[in-house]
Amino acid sequence: MAITLQLDDLPDLARGAALLGTGGGGDPYIGLLLVSAELERGRTITLIDPDEVDDDALVVASAFMGAPTVVIEKIPGGDEPVIALRRLEQHLGRAADAIIPMECGGLNSMVPLLVAARTGLPVVDGDGMGRAFPELQMETFGVYGVSGSPIAICNERKHVTVIDTGPDNHSMEWYARGTTIRMGGVSYIAEYPMTGAQVKRTAIPRTMSLALRLGRVIREAREQHRDPFEALTECLSDTIYQHGRVLLEGKVVDVERRSADGFVRGTARISTFDGSRTVELTFQNEHLVARDGKRLLAIVPDLISVLDAESAAPITTEALRYGQRVRIFAISTPPIMRTPEALEVFGPRAFGLDEDWTPVEELSTV
Amino acid sequence: MAITLQLDDLPDLARGAALLGTGGGGDPYIGLLLVSAELERGRTITLIDPDEVDDDALVVASAFMGAPTVVIEKIPGGDEPVIALRRLEQHLGRAADAIIPMECGGLNSMVPLLVAARTGLPVVDGDGMGRAFPELQMETFGVYGVSGSPIAICNERKHVTVIDTGPDNHSMEWYARGTTIRMGGVSYIAEYPMTGAQVKRTAIPRTMSLALRLGRVIREAREQHRDPFEALTECLSDTIYQHGRVLLEGKVVDVERRSADGFVRGTARISTFDGSRTVELTFQNEHLVARDGKRLLAIVPDLISVLDAESAAPITTEALRYGQRVRIFAISTPPIMRTPEALEVFGPRAFGLDEDWTPVEELSTV
Repeated sequence: MAITLQLDDLPDLARGAALLGTGGGGDPYIGLLLVSAELERGRTITLIDPDEVDDDALVVASAFMGAPTVVIEKIPGGDEPVIALRRLEQHLGRAADAIIPMECGGLNSMVPLLVAARTGLPVVDGDGMGRAFPELQMETFGVYGVSGSPIAICNERKHVTVIDTGPDNHSMEWYARGTTIRMGGVSYIAEYPMTGAQVKRTAIPRTMSLALRLGRVIREAREQHRDPFEALTECLSDTIYQHGRVLLEGKVVDVERRSADGFVRGTARISTFDGSRTVELTFQNEHLVARDGKRLLAIVPDLISVLDAESAAPITTEALRYGQRVRIFAISTPPIMRTPEALEVFGPRAFGLDEDWTPVEELSTV
Repeated sequence: MAITLQLDDLPDLARGAALLGTGGGGDPYIGLLLVSAELERGRTITLIDPDEVDDDALVVASAFMGAPTVVIEKIPGGDEPVIALRRLEQHLGRAADAIIPMECGGLNSMVPLLVAARTGLPVVDGDGMGRAFPELQMETFGVYGVSGSPIAICNERKHVTVIDTGPDNHSMEWYARGTTIRMGGVSYIAEYPMTGAQVKRTAIPRTMSLALRLGRVIREAREQHRDPFEALTECLSDTIYQHGRVLLEGKVVDVERRSADGFVRGTARISTFDGSRTVELTFQNEHLVARDGKRLLAIVPDLISVLDAESAAPITTEALRYGQRVRIFAISTPPIMRTPEALEVFGPRAFGLDEDWTPVEELSTV
């Protein structure tokens, strides 16, 4: 069913998308401001269910790409992702009928809404990552056979690049990343042009409305003085994400972070207040793995998020600071992200990790 | 007047283009083989005078870009520059009427001929560099107001990128270089789409037929047991290049060379046989400056070439070796390359050199 987004929905959506961003995807706050301004200007944004998309519609994925740290320093004007879409349409010789988020996590939950507000196109309630991932080939669209290219890339100077690598999505990522680095570390993209039928077959469905719901659950739990983490676990249990659990509550005792190769990479260590246990998180834009010594607690593609211990406000990897009191929260990924084809593209090996993937719900928390 | 190139012309053209390549532009030998194969297959290549191009014709510059050293290792299949042209045409929504060499030097004298043979398009007798230069904004087309972008870039895997930076040719170079580096160090491009009227106003005219003539002069001097350097000087005197002179005859005593940032950079030192004088050459793909101690002998954009001391065979910067017996030959650039606008784009300062430009014919050789 189509949803018309209201101004009040946006903070909830941003909060839920930050949770699904697993520390990456960019801080949604900047996007929230831009999208709110569009609604205040009287523009409307419609979320449509994947089932409502015509099989032969042209759907284009919209996002920013680059190091989230840079987005904070180079705030978008708002035209960039629209120009990318228009240039891709020009290249394809056909206008898009709808847009779809590349990733439902972080700022990238907001970028497609901005495009929707400015173009009047509906946004498909779903995405290609089901969370945030650092690279463009890591999308279920590509996992299940859609070509990521041609891709159009635009920066704040309105420089535009169109890259076509045929069905080779790894090469698309390679060139797009190089271009984004030369564009100053952040760019706005239109990619994975596909049919409505392909959307239905390859997208992770209803992740935008899920983000909205998760964000709302956190807010309502706060208002009702309930534990928001319990409320999240309860809410997830009847979704395709199903399992949500707290891995550790404690204090950030160490953060090592650097911008390299166009990504934010690093590790964070979080210890229980009594110092008896320490969990180390490794991230590339997003959290990839949580380990207690050598013991695995959760690993990509399952979601690992760090949230404020009391308010459950999600904290991005670039906002992690010594002394923050947090809980590490893990969420199981939907089945479409756990197939052998999917794990080959965004499982532990794709990030150079040695561990095999094990479903988070089968790992012990203590 | 239109010239139909004959198989016998190609070695002369390649030799002359290697001289005008001033050490860079890539070794024309690979291109010579590819273009010869086209003519042997019965295809024809027509050079047309700039005056013959219709004012409203669409003319596109064709070239390879990247480190010449890499071209030797990654021999082109021949389709790459044609695919780049076709993709640019598709982007522009208009077919090209003619192609023009980006640079008349080195391998880039041959790449447009390959495109001509495969497409049937005529090649305009002229170019945008009047020699070889290492970067895409260093073209008289751009100096005099033509936008280099949109540019199409293709590699041997048929990956294609189209870059549009509006009138900002420096940014075009920046992104194109980054893409070329990620493509493995060499790519094939179609750029500076322009009208025939713009060609007439901005191109350096008749440089392809000049290359052919210079290469022929060297060969004929050898056959007639004349000094080829004297013959070159004589031949140049009634062209827009006008002055040609030997700066030093001697032996290569030192070469320091590295591939960095997508370029071949380094220095070479050449000493007279009695060791009384040493000239140091600094290069970035092409020779940029020749100095005798602190004394300037020739500086970019004037041409500096190293040729075999006896046969006058040009030696590229990546082929320079200790012990080679050579003459350093300098050639003055045409007036269109010596204006303040031109010197701003490809004069000494554009290469980070401290010296002011001084016409080579006003510098003392001893």
